[in-house]
Amino acid sequence: MSDPSSSSSNAAQSIAKSAREAFEQSQLVDVSERDVALKAIKEVLEGKKEEILKANKEDMDAAEILLAQGKLSKSLVSRLDLSKLGKFENMLQGINDVSSLPIPTGQITFAKELGPGLDLHRVTCPIGVLLVIFEARPEVVVNIAALAIKSGNAAILKGGKESLKTSTILSNLIAEALGKTSIPSTFIQTVSTRSEISSLLAQDRYIDLVMPRGGNELVKNIQNNTRIPVMGHADGICAVYVDESAIEEKALRVVLESKTDYMAACNSAETLLIHKSLINTIWPKLASTLMSNNICLRCDPNTLSSIRNLKESSKFVTASTEEDYFTEFLGPTLAIKTVNSIEEAIKHINSHSSHHTDSIITENENSILNWFKGLDSANCFINASTRFADGTRYGLGTEVGISTGKTHARGPVGLDGLVIYKYILRSKNEIGSIIADYEKGENKYTHKDLIKGKSPF
Amino acid sequence: MSDPSSSSSNAAQSIAKSAREAFEQSQLVDVSERDVALKAIKEVLEGKKEEILKANKEDMDAAEILLAQGKLSKSLVSRLDLSKLGKFENMLQGINDVSSLPIPTGQITFAKELGPGLDLHRVTCPIGVLLVIFEARPEVVVNIAALAIKSGNAAILKGGKESLKTSTILSNLIAEALGKTSIPSTFIQTVSTRSEISSLLAQDRYIDLVMPRGGNELVKNIQNNTRIPVMGHADGICAVYVDESAIEEKALRVVLESKTDYMAACNSAETLLIHKSLINTIWPKLASTLMSNNICLRCDPNTLSSIRNLKESSKFVTASTEEDYFTEFLGPTLAIKTVNSIEEAIKHINSHSSHHTDSIITENENSILNWFKGLDSANCFINASTRFADGTRYGLGTEVGISTGKTHARGPVGLDGLVIYKYILRSKNEIGSIIADYEKGENKYTHKDLIKGKSPF
Repeated sequence: MSDPSSSSSNAAQSIAKSAREAFEQSQLVDVSERDVALKAIKEVLEGKKEEILKANKEDMDAAEILLAQGKLSKSLVSRLDLSKLGKFENMLQGINDVSSLPIPTGQITFAKELGPGLDLHRVTCPIGVLLVIFEARPEVVVNIAALAIKSGNAAILKGGKESLKTSTILSNLIAEALGKTSIPSTFIQTVSTRSEISSLLAQDRYIDLVMPRGGNELVKNIQNNTRIPVMGHADGICAVYVDESAIEEKALRVVLESKTDYMAACNSAETLLIHKSLINTIWPKLASTLMSNNICLRCDPNTLSSIRNLKESSKFVTASTEEDYFTEFLGPTLAIKTVNSIEEAIKHINSHSSHHTDSIITENENSILNWFKGLDSANCFINASTRFADGTRYGLGTEVGISTGKTHARGPVGLDGLVIYKYILRSKNEIGSIIADYEKGENKYTHKDLIKGKSPF
Repeated sequence: MSDPSSSSSNAAQSIAKSAREAFEQSQLVDVSERDVALKAIKEVLEGKKEEILKANKEDMDAAEILLAQGKLSKSLVSRLDLSKLGKFENMLQGINDVSSLPIPTGQITFAKELGPGLDLHRVTCPIGVLLVIFEARPEVVVNIAALAIKSGNAAILKGGKESLKTSTILSNLIAEALGKTSIPSTFIQTVSTRSEISSLLAQDRYIDLVMPRGGNELVKNIQNNTRIPVMGHADGICAVYVDESAIEEKALRVVLESKTDYMAACNSAETLLIHKSLINTIWPKLASTLMSNNICLRCDPNTLSSIRNLKESSKFVTASTEEDYFTEFLGPTLAIKTVNSIEEAIKHINSHSSHHTDSIITENENSILNWFKGLDSANCFINASTRFADGTRYGLGTEVGISTGKTHARGPVGLDGLVIYKYILRSKNEIGSIIADYEKGENKYTHKDLIKGKSPF
C-alpha cells in the first residue's frame, strides 16, 4: 500500500483538500442546518428508491456469480442485499433516528474564570474530516453520512467493491441533496478503489481520523500505513467466566445466549472459563446445553475429562490448543478452560481476549469488585449476556462502531465519539489580558468554576 | 528506525510485558496507595539530593564540552541543569502538586438503567501502559512518573541522551521507592537507547499510548513507525489577528507579549495578521513597538510599504516569503500579513498554523462568533495573550503536555488526558439478564438516567 501512483495520489489530495474546505466552510453554517440536510437526503433517497434498488440488483447479480464460484461468502452477499423486506425503510428510518439525537457539538464541558474578566470555556466541536472504510453493507454509506452531518464532520467513504454500484448511487444522491442545502455538497464524498485509500492515508494534513469498520487485518494494515489516528475495531474475542459462586440458571442463560444468539457478531463469546469447583456440577450441564445447540467444545484436560462420558461428547468435544484461546471463531465453536481463581480468570482474559466484552457469572461481591478493577476490557459485565454490548442497547442512539482501542472512545461509540473540543479564552478587560498582569502580581489566578451551561458569548 | 536488532527487540518486549504486568497487578491495589507511592518517591529523592546532583553534574560537564564544540545548543544545556536555584525543590514540589490533585479514575461519566435490574455505568480508568519520549530536561522523569502513578498508568520513559546519568539515577530511585509500596517497582521503567524505542514501538500488544514530548520531527517519525496511538505535540505556529475593530492598547499589549515573553515557547506567536483598514493606523505603532524589542519583521507588500519610512525599518524589516507563514521561528522573527476580512484571517490560520493557539484582537461580537466557529485551533483566544495556553494557567493542575492532535485530548492536557473508561453492566435479576428477555418483549429497555455520583457496587 505504500507506493501509490502519482495520479491517484493527486486525486486523493484533491478529495482530501476539498473535504477539508467543505468542513471549514460548514463550520460557519448554523447547526440547525444539519437537520435540514438530513431531511433533504431522506427525501431524495425516498424519491429514488427504484433507481437505488436497480443499482443494488446489479451488485447482487455480480455477487451471486462470485458466490457460485466460491469467491464470496453467503453472509457477505446477504449483507449486500438492500431489497430485503424492510431494509430500505430501515435505512431511511436511520436518518430520522440520527436527526432526532441531540447535537453533540457546542456543549460546554469545562468552564473556569482564570482571573478577573478572563473566562475559559471548553466547548465540544467536530473532529474535522473522517475517512471511513467499510465492507459489504451499502446502507453504511447513508448511516455514516448521517452521523457525520449530525456531528459536523466532513467524511470520505470507501465501501466494499462488491457494493460499488449501490454505494455510488447513494453517494451521488447524498451530494445532490446537499446541493440544495447550506452544507457543501463535497461534505460527503465517496472513493471506490484501494489505491485511492493508500493515497488518502498519506493526507494527514487534511484528514483527522480514519475509521476502519472491518476485521483485524484491515485495521492493522491501516494502522501500519498512516500517521492519522485510527479508531478501529480489532477482534471480538469475548469470554464468559463462571465463578465459584455462580447460580446455575444464570450461568446457563448467559453462556448459551452469549455463544449462540448471533455467532458472527463481535460481541459473541468465544471462550468459556470455568472455576475448578464447578467441573462436576454446573459445567456438565452447561456442556450438555451447548452441545444440544450444536456447539463444538474445545476443552482443556479438566473440563474434557469431566464430560467425556456425556452422550454427545464424542461428536462435539475435542482437546483445546493454546491457539484456540486467541481465536475469534465467529461460528459454532467455543474454547473452554478451567481456572483456579477469579484472579487467574482475569489474567487469562487480559492476555488472550481483545479487550472487547467479558462477562462474569457470580454472586460474590468481592469477585465483582476484582472483575471491575482488574479486567482490562471495554465492557465488563456481571451476570449479563455479552450481546448487550451495543450502542443502541446502551441507549447511546445510533452506533458509530465499537472501538477496541484505549484512547478517545472505547466500547460502543455514539455521536460523542465523533467530537473533540476547543478551549475558548475570552478577555473582557478594558486593556485585554496578558500573563504579565498575573506574573507581576497585579492580578491573581482565581480558577473559579463558572456555570457550565452558560454560553461564553 | 525499522530494523532493530533482535536482542534489543527481545529486551523491549520484556520491558513492555513487565510494564503491562505491573499495570494489571496495580489495578487490584487500592487507589489510595498511589499517593503513598508519591510520598515515598519524594522522600527517597529528597534524601538522595547530593547523589542526584552529582550525576547531573556529570551530564552537565559532558554537555558543556559538546556546547563548546557547537554540538549542543545553549538552551538545551540550560534545560539540563538541575542545580539551578530552586529547580530541584520545584521538582519535588511537583510531586506534591500531583499528589494533591483529585484522582482522575473511578469517576462515573454516564449511568443508565437499561431495563429492570440492569444498570450500566461508564467509569473512568487508566489507559494502561504509556511510552513517554522526551528531550533534555531530566526532571521530566519525576514529573511523568508522578502523573502516571496518580492516574494509575504504568510508564516506560526515554529521556534525551544528554541527561542519561541524571535520568538513570532518578529512575533507579523511583523504582527503589516503589519497592517499599504496594505499587510494583516495574510500574515506572526507563530505557536509554534509540534502538530500544524502535523496538518498543512494535509492542502494540503491551503499550497503549505513545507520548512524544519533542519537536515535530520526533512526533512524525514516531507516527510513521508504530501502530500504537500517539498523543503528540507538533509545531507551535501561533498567530495573532488584529481585527478591524481592535482597540490599540489591547493589540499592543497582546501582540507584544505573545511574541516576546518567551520566544522559545510553543505558545508564542510566529505570525501576525493585520486587517487592511489598520495598515496606516495601529500597524505602524505595533511595528515600532516590536522593533524596539528587537523583533525582525517579515512583511507582505502592504504591511511593508506602510512602515518603510520608520526609523528602524532598514534594520528590522524584510519582505516575507510564503514559507515564513509556515515557520515556527522560536526566536525574534515574526511573519506579518495583511488580510481583507476575518474570514480571510481564519482561512489563513487554518491552512498555515499548527492548530495550537491563535488570538484575535477585536471588539466585534460577530467577529468573535466567527472566530470561535471557524477557527480550527485547540485554543481560540479573544483579546488575550497566546501565552495563557498552558495547563497550569488553565487550572488543570500539572500539565501532561499540549496536544495538537484532534482526538482523545486537545490543547493543554491534564491528568484527564491519561484516562479512558470502561462500561460496567451489572444485572441484579434473579436469573441474570439476556437480550432475549428484551427481544421477545418480556422486558422493555428503559434507558433511564441513574444518579452519576452513585457507585455501581
